[in-house]
Amino acid sequence: MSTSNIHGIIGYTITPFTADGEQIDLSALGRSIDQLIDSGVHAIAPLGSTGEGAYLSDAEWDQVSQFTLAHVAKRVPTIVSVSDLTTAKAVRRARLAEQYGADVVMVLPAAYWKLSEAEILAHYRAIGHSISTPIMLYNNPATSGTDMSVELILRIFNAVENVTMVKESTGDIQRMHHLQQLGEGQIPFYNGCNPLALEAFAAGAKGWCTAAPNLIPALNLGLYEAVLANDLKTARELFYRQLPLLQFILKGGLPATIKAGLRLTGIEAGDPRLPVFPLSESAVSQLQQILKILR
Amino acid sequence: MSTSNIHGIIGYTITPFTADGEQIDLSALGRSIDQLIDSGVHAIAPLGSTGEGAYLSDAEWDQVSQFTLAHVAKRVPTIVSVSDLTTAKAVRRARLAEQYGADVVMVLPAAYWKLSEAEILAHYRAIGHSISTPIMLYNNPATSGTDMSVELILRIFNAVENVTMVKESTGDIQRMHHLQQLGEGQIPFYNGCNPLALEAFAAGAKGWCTAAPNLIPALNLGLYEAVLANDLKTARELFYRQLPLLQFILKGGLPATIKAGLRLTGIEAGDPRLPVFPLSESAVSQLQQILKILR
Amino acid sequence: MSTSNIHGIIGYTITPFTADGEQIDLSALGRSIDQLIDSGVHAIAPLGSTGEGAYLSDAEWDQVSQFTLAHVAKRVPTIVSVSDLTTAKAVRRARLAEQYGADVVMVLPAAYWKLSEAEILAHYRAIGHSISTPIMLYNNPATSGTDMSVELILRIFNAVENVTMVKESTGDIQRMHHLQQLGEGQIPFYNGCNPLALEAFAAGAKGWCTAAPNLIPALNLGLYEAVLANDLKTARELFYRQLPLLQFILKGGLPATIKAGLRLTGIEAGDPRLPVFPLSESAVSQLQQILKILR
Amino acid sequence: MSTSNIHGIIGYTITPFTADGEQIDLSALGRSIDQLIDSGVHAIAPLGSTGEGAYLSDAEWDQVSQFTLAHVAKRVPTIVSVSDLTTAKAVRRARLAEQYGADVVMVLPAAYWKLSEAEILAHYRAIGHSISTPIMLYNNPATSGTDMSVELILRIFNAVENVTMVKESTGDIQRMHHLQQLGEGQIPFYNGCNPLALEAFAAGAKGWCTAAPNLIPALNLGLYEAVLANDLKTARELFYRQLPLLQFILKGGLPATIKAGLRLTGIEAGDPRLPVFPLSESAVSQLQQILKILR
Repeated sequence: MSTSNIHGIIGYTITPFTADGEQIDLSALGRSIDQLIDSGVHAIAPLGSTGEGAYLSDAEWDQVSQFTLAHVAKRVPTIVSVSDLTTAKAVRRARLAEQYGADVVMVLPAAYWKLSEAEILAHYRAIGHSISTPIMLYNNPATSGTDMSVELILRIFNAVENVTMVKESTGDIQRMHHLQQLGEGQIPFYNGCNPLALEAFAAGAKGWCTAAPNLIPALNLGLYEAVLANDLKTARELFYRQLPLLQFILKGGLPATIKAGLRLTGIEAGDPRLPVFPLSESAVSQLQQILKILR
Repeated sequence: MSTSNIHGIIGYTITPFTADGEQIDLSALGRSIDQLIDSGVHAIAPLGSTGEGAYLSDAEWDQVSQFTLAHVAKRVPTIVSVSDLTTAKAVRRARLAEQYGADVVMVLPAAYWKLSEAEILAHYRAIGHSISTPIMLYNNPATSGTDMSVELILRIFNAVENVTMVKESTGDIQRMHHLQQLGEGQIPFYNGCNPLALEAFAAGAKGWCTAAPNLIPALNLGLYEAVLANDLKTARELFYRQLPLLQFILKGGLPATIKAGLRLTGIEAGDPRLPVFPLSESAVSQLQQILKILR
Repeated sequence: MSTSNIHGIIGYTITPFTADGEQIDLSALGRSIDQLIDSGVHAIAPLGSTGEGAYLSDAEWDQVSQFTLAHVAKRVPTIVSVSDLTTAKAVRRARLAEQYGADVVMVLPAAYWKLSEAEILAHYRAIGHSISTPIMLYNNPATSGTDMSVELILRIFNAVENVTMVKESTGDIQRMHHLQQLGEGQIPFYNGCNPLALEAFAAGAKGWCTAAPNLIPALNLGLYEAVLANDLKTARELFYRQLPLLQFILKGGLPATIKAGLRLTGIEAGDPRLPVFPLSESAVSQLQQILKILR
Repeated sequence: MSTSNIHGIIGYTITPFTADGEQIDLSALGRSIDQLIDSGVHAIAPLGSTGEGAYLSDAEWDQVSQFTLAHVAKRVPTIVSVSDLTTAKAVRRARLAEQYGADVVMVLPAAYWKLSEAEILAHYRAIGHSISTPIMLYNNPATSGTDMSVELILRIFNAVENVTMVKESTGDIQRMHHLQQLGEGQIPFYNGCNPLALEAFAAGAKGWCTAAPNLIPALNLGLYEAVLANDLKTARELFYRQLPLLQFILKGGLPATIKAGLRLTGIEAGDPRLPVFPLSESAVSQLQQILKILR
C-alpha cells in the first residue's frame, strides 16, 4: 500500500484494560477498532498518545500491535506508533510492527534528555534503515520534550528515504506554512492538534490524526468532506459545532476522555493507568451533555 | 457611519518624514493615502505600529491625525490609533481623532508596567466615556507588553458601550475561536497578524488590518474576495503566493519594509526614526525580488 | 566623580504629583530625597521605573531632573535614567542630565518594536558620543521588551567608551555569572531585581538598585554591610527578613507601593498616573502590617 | 539512618555499560562508586538522570539498584531514584530499593501527559504508603515535563508522611526562597541545578545533588565547607573556579560528560545509550583542558 493513500480522518485507537487495570482487554479493543472502521475513518493509528503506548510493558505493546494489525486486516491503512526512549527499543518496535503488517510506522523522538539535532537525525536514520515500511515523522514537543524545527524535519525527510510523511502537533499553524513552503508542496503533512483542524486543512494538510472519531466520526468526516468540496462556509460551521468536544478532549486528556466517552456509548474499555486519572463524575456529565448535542 | 461597515482589507498608512527625519512630509502622506484608497482597500488605519505613532511628538501626532482625516475625506472609513502610555494622553488623542472625523478609534493598552485587568478595564472605560466614536479594542502583547485574555476582552466589550470591535494580533489562532465561541458570534473580530491571514478568515474574521496593501493590494484583496466567494482553494493559493512578502514585512519591521517598498514604487517617505534602522541594501534587493514576482 | 565610587545601596526616587495628578510636587520630592540620603544610601537614581519617567511629559522630565540634581547637590552620586523611545529624545535627555550635573546616566533600550542588536548598539553609541558622563547600561526585558544577551552587553561595553557599568534585571542570576565570566571580573554589575538581592551580592554585584530604601533603609544597608563583612549567615537572615516587603513591592508595583508606603510615614507624594492604580485599601493594610514588623 | 543526616555534597553515580552497550558493567560501577565515596562525598544517588535510569530495562534497574546498595554498604547514605511512568512501576521500584537497603528514595513525577495536581499528589501518596523509607520529592520540569509549584510541594509534604525532603531543579532560585518562606524553614531543600550551587547554599539549601564530584570532588566539597564556615568570599571564589566545568556538564549532557571525564581519569564506563551521543572528540579535548586547570 503506497503512502499516497494516507489522507483524511485518521482515528487513534485506545488501549482497553481489564477492570483491575492489569491486562489488555482484546475483546474491547476489537470492538473499538470495528466501530472506528465502520464509522468511515480513512486510516487508524494504534499505540500513540491515546493508545497509552508509553504506559505499556514491552509484552503488552507487542500484544496490542499484533492484535490490532490482524484485526484491521487491511480494511484501512494502519499507522503504528513505535516510539521508545532508546533507539534500540524503537527499532525493535518498528521491526515488529512491520512484521505484523503495519502500513506506516510513526516515530516521535521521545526523550528524557533534550536531544541534539544530530542525535534526532541518527535516531530516525537507525529506525529507517531497520525497516522498509514508510515512516511518519511526528513532532509534538508537549509530550516528547523535543521540538523539531521545520528545517530539521526537512533534513530528516531528505536524509532518510522512508520518512515520507510529517505529523505536526505543536499547535502553531505557521509550522505547516513553513512545511508547505520549504518542502515546495512535496511533503505530505498531517495535523495532530485537534483545535487546529479547520486551519490545518485550510493550510493544506492531507489528513487529521485524531481521537475524536471514537465519539463523533460524522462531524470529523463531514469537515474533511467540506474541505474536499471547497466549501469553506460548511467547513467552518462544522468545525465550530465540534470544537467544544475537541477542546474538551484536549483539556480532559485523550485516554481519559475517549475511554469515558466509549463507556457512554456501550464499549467498556477500562480506565487509564495511574497516575493518569479517569474522568471525574462531573466531567463525565459534561461530556454526556456535549455528546447529546452533537450526536 | 456604522461600524457594521468595517470589513475586508484595512490598510495601515505609514508616516513619511522629511530627509532629515525631523518633519512630517504631508505631501508624501497624501500620496500614500491616495494610492491605498485607489487600490481598493475597504478602510484605512493611520498612526498605528506601521505609522510610527509611538515615535511622534504630540504636535506631530495631531498634525498627522488631522491631515489624514481631511485627506481621506470619507472616501473610506478611517480607524485612528489613539494609544498612549497614560490614560489622560490617550483620552486627549481620542477626542482629537473624533473631532477630526475618525470613524473608529483603535486602543492598544500600551504600558510600561504590566497592567492589572482592573486597570485595563478602567483605561478603556475612561476613553470610551470621553467620546461617542466606536472603539476597536486591540490586543498585541508583542508591542504593548500586555496580553488580554479573551475573558477580559469580553468583560470590556460588555462594560464599555462603544467598544464594538476587537483586533487580535497574538499570533494564536485559537484566540479567535474563543472570541467566536464566548462572544456567540456577536463580536466582530479582525486579524492583525499577517501570516495568519488565511486562517483568520477561515475562522470567521471580518477583516484583516495590514500594511501589505501599500505594496501588494491586489493579492490582499483577492484573498478576501476568494473567502467571500467561499472558494477555499483559490484563497489558499493566493495566501501562499503572498506569504513570502507577509513574512518579509514581519521580519524586516513594518515601517522599515513599507517605506523601502514605497520608495521602490516611487513614493519617497523617508526612513523610520532611530533607533529603528531603515532596511539594509541587501534586504531592499530581496524585497525588490519578492515584489517583482508578485506584481 | 569616578564611577568606581558607585556601589552599595542605590535608592530610586519617586516622582510626587499634586492631588489632581497634574503637577509635580517639588516640595515632596525634596523631602523624599532628603529622607533617602539621610537614611544612608550610597547613591540615588531618579526618573527610572519607580520615578514614573515614562509617564512624564518632556517639560516635567526636565523639571524633575534639574530639581533633583540641584537638591542632591553632590551629597551622594546621582544616576539619572534618560531612556526614551527615539534615539534623538534619549540624547536630548542625556545632555540635559549631564548639564544639570548627573554623575551617571542610565539607559534602558526602551522600544516599541523589538530592536536588532545593531540598532541597540547604535542607540548606545549615539548617546555615548553625545555626552562625557559615564553610562550605566540597563537590561530589563520586562519593561523594555528587549532582552540584551551578555554577549551583546559586552559588545556595547567594548564599543562605547563611557558605558562603564551594567544593571541587570532579568531575574536570572546566571546572567550575572556570565557577566562576571565573560567580563573577566572587569565589568561592574549592579542588581535591579529585588528578590535576587542576596544572590546578586553572592555572585559579586557591586550594588543593588532598589526602591526599598524609601521604606526600610536599615535592612537594605544591613544586608550590604553583612556581605562586605563576609558574613553570609547574617546576610541570609537579613535577606529573609526583608524578603516579604521586597516581594510585596514587586507584586504591587513600584510607584504604587512606594507612594503608599511614604504616605504611611508622613510624606504625601500623591498617586501614580492612570492607568496605573494606587494601592487598594486592603493592600495598604497589608503593607502597614509588613512595615510594622520590619521597622 | 535519619534523613536529618542527608546534607552536603550528594554525588550522582553513572551506570557503566559494556563496550557493546548491552550489558551493565558492574565492575566499573563498583570502582566509580568507590572513587566517589573515597573523595569524601556525603551521600550518593544512583539511577537518576546521570545514571540513565530512564534508559534501563526493569531487570537492569533491579541489578544496578541491588548492586549499588550492597557495594556502598552504608559507608554513606544512598538516595535511590525510583521514578517511573506509571504509579505501579514506581511503587515496584520503591519497594525494591527499600528491600535492598536504600536510605532515601527519590521521586520525580515523570509523565507522558501533563499531570494534574491531584494526580501528582495521588502518585506520591501511593508510593509513600507502599514503603516506610523517607522520600525526596524531586521537581525538574525540564526532564519530567511537569512543574510542581511550591504550594503543591507543600501540600504533598504535609499529606504524605514520609515525603521529608525536596530537591529543586527548576533553575529559578526564587523557588527556594518560597520553600524557605512557606515551609517556615522546616522543609529541608536540596539543589539539583549545578550553575546555582553558590546561590542555593546562600539561600539555605541543605545539600547539592550533583554529578560533578565524579570529576572535581575537592572543589565541590570546598564550596560546601566555605559555606559552613560562613566564608562567602571563599565560597564565591571556589564557585567561579568550578563554574566552567558545571556549565560544560550541563551543556554536554550529564551521562555523556561524566562518562567521558571518568574515561580521562582511568575508569572506562562505556557510552550513553543511543539516541544520546557520547561526547564528540573536540568536546573531550575541551573537557580535558578544563579538568587540567581545575585538578
